[in-house]
Amino acid sequence: MRRPRVLVTSGDPGGVGPELILRSLADPEVGGLAEFTVVASPADFRRDAEALGLPMPNILPVSGVSGVPAGRPSAEGARAAVEAVRTAAGLMAEQGADALVTAPVSKQALRLGGYPWPGQTEMLADMCAASDLRVLLMAGPLRVVHVTAHRSLRGAIDAVTRASVLRTIQLTDGIGRRLLGRPPRVAVAGLNPHAGEHGILGDEEEQAIGPAVADARARGIDASGPLSADTLFPRAAAGEMDLVVAMYHDQGHIPVKLLGPDEGVAVTLGLPFLRMSPDHGAAFDIAGQGVARSGSMKAAMRAAAGAARRGLQEADDVH
Amino acid sequence: MRRPRVLVTSGDPGGVGPELILRSLADPEVGGLAEFTVVASPADFRRDAEALGLPMPNILPVSGVSGVPAGRPSAEGARAAVEAVRTAAGLMAEQGADALVTAPVSKQALRLGGYPWPGQTEMLADMCAASDLRVLLMAGPLRVVHVTAHRSLRGAIDAVTRASVLRTIQLTDGIGRRLLGRPPRVAVAGLNPHAGEHGILGDEEEQAIGPAVADARARGIDASGPLSADTLFPRAAAGEMDLVVAMYHDQGHIPVKLLGPDEGVAVTLGLPFLRMSPDHGAAFDIAGQGVARSGSMKAAMRAAAGAARRGLQEADDVH
Repeated sequence: MRRPRVLVTSGDPGGVGPELILRSLADPEVGGLAEFTVVASPADFRRDAEALGLPMPNILPVSGVSGVPAGRPSAEGARAAVEAVRTAAGLMAEQGADALVTAPVSKQALRLGGYPWPGQTEMLADMCAASDLRVLLMAGPLRVVHVTAHRSLRGAIDAVTRASVLRTIQLTDGIGRRLLGRPPRVAVAGLNPHAGEHGILGDEEEQAIGPAVADARARGIDASGPLSADTLFPRAAAGEMDLVVAMYHDQGHIPVKLLGPDEGVAVTLGLPFLRMSPDHGAAFDIAGQGVARSGSMKAAMRAAAGAARRGLQEADDVH
Repeated sequence: MRRPRVLVTSGDPGGVGPELILRSLADPEVGGLAEFTVVASPADFRRDAEALGLPMPNILPVSGVSGVPAGRPSAEGARAAVEAVRTAAGLMAEQGADALVTAPVSKQALRLGGYPWPGQTEMLADMCAASDLRVLLMAGPLRVVHVTAHRSLRGAIDAVTRASVLRTIQLTDGIGRRLLGRPPRVAVAGLNPHAGEHGILGDEEEQAIGPAVADARARGIDASGPLSADTLFPRAAAGEMDLVVAMYHDQGHIPVKLLGPDEGVAVTLGLPFLRMSPDHGAAFDIAGQGVARSGSMKAAMRAAAGAARRGLQEADDVH
């Protein structure tokens, strides 16, 4: 089996991305896990490496981008990030690598640059002509996939349909197999308090979530629920289930951020390839100072390398 | 200053209530904190004490109730619980005690008994002619007051109004002073992801929550928010704020149950007196076996005794 290949985009070079990438790859427990290639403007990246006294990684150059101002959102920073993602997405589409890790960009910089996307997930969806994505957030003992993410709570409730929940469970089962190397135990949270208490506290459990769980089970997925969210997460944290399907942003983000601060990894589900990212922003205010915590970036690289290796193993097993 | 007086109702004598009360009061670190009086059917309680080999506490007898079947919901069990609460509420109204702790009842038993209340909170609201109550849930490092509790998530969103959030903040400030002996730092969560992100992900923050926080600050309350719920709870757990106002059941219950399993205490706010209870049910399936965990009941008794003592100190300070 060949070594897994992982692409890492620079994110906004004015933020903490380059520094976190350099520090993470310099850690032999991370850098040795795969053949990592950084997609970035070489000049900017070399300057950061020299400033931090860290070795230059393999670079896949993004042309026509350099001189990004450090420590603040800028149109140039956004452009560098977008071009890195565009280059990486092209390579992933040609199966030039097994997984993609993206360092953070800034919504504000993307706006300054005149781009239509609020973040890299929407950017990738657009570049890959993929729609209906889901986000897995993992940290500490929890892995949670969200039916919806950045929508108002009212809008999130409207999006809890049988089809949408089923698709989420299927994507959860798929990434679970890739992460764990076996069919995962998937627990599905209710939307309402006490998972609706048999319809007394809301009917989405009986109308949408319960039927979707039944659909998933009929397809051979080890799904259970809908379960009361407040008692579900302690059980998941104790290892009773492998992944949780949450109905909306805060239902999943509150427990993950509480149990796994500074090591959160987001995985985008529904793209034609594996993409992981640290769950924090570009943090311009602390960029270049060597104080940014690299836990999330390291965890994202580790997870990408591990999932890529498992994919290669499976391909080997088939041949 | 006299010793604080705390009433403890038996809850459903067929459930774990009597056993938890007996074991908690037999713990000198709990039983010594106040003058505890148990409101219960003496015959049933004596039988439980003898079975467990524990001393009989002070009993305020509830007449006309005995022979409750053990280990299952029954109309008799509900009646015993209701009569204990009725007696206790009467005594509290006459200021015969400083705080009330209620052991658990069962929704199913209350239904079997033909009572209109799903739980003791609604029962007490009715008996005290109090409306518009709030629930503080506390465990581990967190204390969270909920704008709404047992409503569908759609209904909970509808109930997030400026007036309702302001009342919640005021009740939170009041109980915080009682629990901590000083004005508390109150953090108010947003309803939508990222607290609405300046109106992009929902408008309840700008229409209701933000104005309510401003109203509270104008009244001298140390309130902040609306804050993104997923990043707020780790900060609250680290001690950066004293109490959190959550907009709906799961937003508060998920973090509390995750960080403080087996020691949750619910405090009812808006009654004419202090009432605390363990945050679990009657657990008929394990009643009388000596295996029920007494952490929540002990925590409820400790919190009631502490808050009652602080109330007496304040009264002394005034005189």
